[in-house]
Amino acid sequence: MKSLLASWESLCTASGAVRFVDINLRGVGQVMFQDNPLSGALFLAAIAWGSFAAGVPQVLFGGLLAVVAATCTAQWLRVDRASLHAGLHGFNGVLVGLALATFIAPGPLLWAYVVLGAAVSVVAMEATAGVARTWGMPALTFPFVLVTWLLLLATYGFAGLSGSALPAAGVVAPFQSMAATRLDAGLFVQATLLGISQVFLKGSAIAALLFLAGLAVNSVAAAVAAIAGAMLAVITAHALGAESDLVTGGLLGFSPVLTAVALGTVFNKPGLRVAAYAALGTVFTVVAQAAFNVALTPLAIPALTGPFVLVTWMFLLPRLALDKAAAEPSGK
Amino acid sequence: MKSLLASWESLCTASGAVRFVDINLRGVGQVMFQDNPLSGALFLAAIAWGSFAAGVPQVLFGGLLAVVAATCTAQWLRVDRASLHAGLHGFNGVLVGLALATFIAPGPLLWAYVVLGAAVSVVAMEATAGVARTWGMPALTFPFVLVTWLLLLATYGFAGLSGSALPAAGVVAPFQSMAATRLDAGLFVQATLLGISQVFLKGSAIAALLFLAGLAVNSVAAAVAAIAGAMLAVITAHALGAESDLVTGGLLGFSPVLTAVALGTVFNKPGLRVAAYAALGTVFTVVAQAAFNVALTPLAIPALTGPFVLVTWMFLLPRLALDKAAAEPSGK
Amino acid sequence: MKSLLASWESLCTASGAVRFVDINLRGVGQVMFQDNPLSGALFLAAIAWGSFAAGVPQVLFGGLLAVVAATCTAQWLRVDRASLHAGLHGFNGVLVGLALATFIAPGPLLWAYVVLGAAVSVVAMEATAGVARTWGMPALTFPFVLVTWLLLLATYGFAGLSGSALPAAGVVAPFQSMAATRLDAGLFVQATLLGISQVFLKGSAIAALLFLAGLAVNSVAAAVAAIAGAMLAVITAHALGAESDLVTGGLLGFSPVLTAVALGTVFNKPGLRVAAYAALGTVFTVVAQAAFNVALTPLAIPALTGPFVLVTWMFLLPRLALDKAAAEPSGK
Repeated sequence: MKSLLASWESLCTASGAVRFVDINLRGVGQVMFQDNPLSGALFLAAIAWGSFAAGVPQVLFGGLLAVVAATCTAQWLRVDRASLHAGLHGFNGVLVGLALATFIAPGPLLWAYVVLGAAVSVVAMEATAGVARTWGMPALTFPFVLVTWLLLLATYGFAGLSGSALPAAGVVAPFQSMAATRLDAGLFVQATLLGISQVFLKGSAIAALLFLAGLAVNSVAAAVAAIAGAMLAVITAHALGAESDLVTGGLLGFSPVLTAVALGTVFNKPGLRVAAYAALGTVFTVVAQAAFNVALTPLAIPALTGPFVLVTWMFLLPRLALDKAAAEPSGK
Repeated sequence: MKSLLASWESLCTASGAVRFVDINLRGVGQVMFQDNPLSGALFLAAIAWGSFAAGVPQVLFGGLLAVVAATCTAQWLRVDRASLHAGLHGFNGVLVGLALATFIAPGPLLWAYVVLGAAVSVVAMEATAGVARTWGMPALTFPFVLVTWLLLLATYGFAGLSGSALPAAGVVAPFQSMAATRLDAGLFVQATLLGISQVFLKGSAIAALLFLAGLAVNSVAAAVAAIAGAMLAVITAHALGAESDLVTGGLLGFSPVLTAVALGTVFNKPGLRVAAYAALGTVFTVVAQAAFNVALTPLAIPALTGPFVLVTWMFLLPRLALDKAAAEPSGK
Repeated sequence: MKSLLASWESLCTASGAVRFVDINLRGVGQVMFQDNPLSGALFLAAIAWGSFAAGVPQVLFGGLLAVVAATCTAQWLRVDRASLHAGLHGFNGVLVGLALATFIAPGPLLWAYVVLGAAVSVVAMEATAGVARTWGMPALTFPFVLVTWLLLLATYGFAGLSGSALPAAGVVAPFQSMAATRLDAGLFVQATLLGISQVFLKGSAIAALLFLAGLAVNSVAAAVAAIAGAMLAVITAHALGAESDLVTGGLLGFSPVLTAVALGTVFNKPGLRVAAYAALGTVFTVVAQAAFNVALTPLAIPALTGPFVLVTWMFLLPRLALDKAAAEPSGK
């Protein structure tokens, strides 16, 4: 693996075009914090599989268009070279593209909207990183969430863009379970896997396995944390009586998965105390995800990874003696 | 009083169990900024009275469970010793416990929820203090408000937790007073006292007197500010034509009471200019409380002390020449 | 022009009353970033024309009352002298007064409300500037937006204040254009001009010309940026299929106009790259304005200049090599 990556890196140094591909692949990889082009390629394969399997190839196209647009914008804005090469200006863009193409009906205006959103996501990334740096915090996917929320909300005011798959606006009302729902082993595995694949807005078990492979090639700990986080999210959501469809569809799991990976492996050195702390954060992210879903009901937009960003910042800000990794969090 | 507290302190030094009790009592006291175990004990008596008088003993239990859970979490996280001993990691917890037990129907899941909320309130406290410190600001009850809002919102997505006493969701609509409401002397006194007791989510005049006693044993100025703030809130709300039930139930008064105590006595040295400034902040907190009530109508959750936090931060941030207390605000 | 302003300045130095007038005029001028009493006087003429032409003279009175109340509050709070003399404590006040008098029915309580809002806007300005300074950011009109949102929301809870011109609360729903709307040359010019005049909540072409004159006497670049921003906003909103009445009424244009002036001339040195960057920000402000309009639908309050503040902060925070003006942004 190491020699493969080394030869790839020398290719990048030799050719601007290969470097450009490398930056975009790392951008995809950074959605789950992996600064590795192979992770990015596997994640891309998962997105492709999920998009074609669901009959929405335009979602793959939206993600690709967006990550390229984001990288070009970052180059035009002459952002910090090291961050650019690590893919830190691409991951918000690819998510903006995937989300817009998932929730809005295809058409020329959608692609203009994707390019606009991807370009602005780079500005939002620089802005967020500039503020978050004050407390040594990473920007996480806040730029993606902010920019996409604005773009999705605005579609309700624009006849040219229709939100084909957006949730319907409604009044907040208590959820009542019909009957005691059962969660057998098969549904448990499905719920766990879809929680992982929904990080990229995909509901596919095969895509989930590709995502896990992409994590494992760069960090086995991250892959383990993702699985553990997804399982903990399913158990928590089920115990609290969440809607079965949300649980088995992985829709209460993707934010907790990201929290588990971030708190358990990326920004803290793995260990027993860290694992307990990350588990607390993961459980609370399930609550936050449910809360965001409720709070956004009147606005008819999805929560995206907002709950992950809020809870992970909350749990990273305290300067606790949790055997924190010596290295400070990077710009991301 | 001083010698009593001194003997108590030597007991604390001698026994870990007494110290633990002391930390929890101070945690209760810090809800109204009083770093004094006797204040905490009197506040606790008021909570007990209010809970039993209203036939909801589980609220007292919720508060006790939460403050103990918060203190244990703080010890596990090895937070700063001085802050811990001053009760600064307990006051958000006790409020989380009181609020959850007030708004959610009792049951095993509620108690799990209270422990989760109390534990996370400690993390949120450390996070908020870390950010607020940048501008010399105290965390106030922001951690309580944030964590409780998320926990309450999430109940609408969980069949296992039902919000028995939460407000109903609705559409924003102008309030029309039925007729010119009269506010006679008896109602005025009641409104003033309940404004004070509602700081702890209680509507009881006797509890209010116990709260005032708890303030007075540590700071007569704070007790005076609480009364003055509550009266000013009643006058302001009545003059603007607020709903009579909200005014006489103290529901527009508890945030202004906290603002008055904070701006008038805790973070500024009392004086004429400070009193005028605190009065402006107190009046505006009534407006903010009404605004939060309206803004949260579609979400069907209560404003809690959010208006107090917003307005008090707004009025503390300016570096004004108001004969500010030499001492910087502490971690709270 | 220069000698005129120099004689005026010596008058100010000689007479406290003239200085007081000067501060208030500059306060009005700073709504569009112009630290020039003549700009303020022309803006005031535009407000007067717009108010009388629309049959709402109380709006002019609200603005005047508010700016004077804000200046007096700033003097009482002994704020920084240089900022005070530059009008930086007045522009939020005048906007609070204009907005309250526009949206709330006249009466004695309205005027008390205007004075309260103007006074609090000064505190909010100091607070915002104190926080924003951390990242070298100006406060922009955030204090106006925050204070006015709270004051307007609260009117739904107060029978004494009725929001005569506030939007009705509703459920978020997609906008469907009736038919292909045409935007001929006349409507295009009207939409452009009203976008400029709506910065001061006025829908009048003649007022717009007076505003442009006020800009031009202090900065021709600012006047050009305002026109270009307004045109770009009309084109963007029309292309995305926004509601015709909003476009031709300038209601999607006032925030983009402010963004264009701020990013293109005030906080960056004008140039080709800066113009492209400002154009991106201006286009995104149209999206943000539509998004805020949708998000605030359930709350029945207007977006005010919130979208401008959000997008301009987002685009100013990145430390980009855009030939930035050497001078750091001032306190505003």
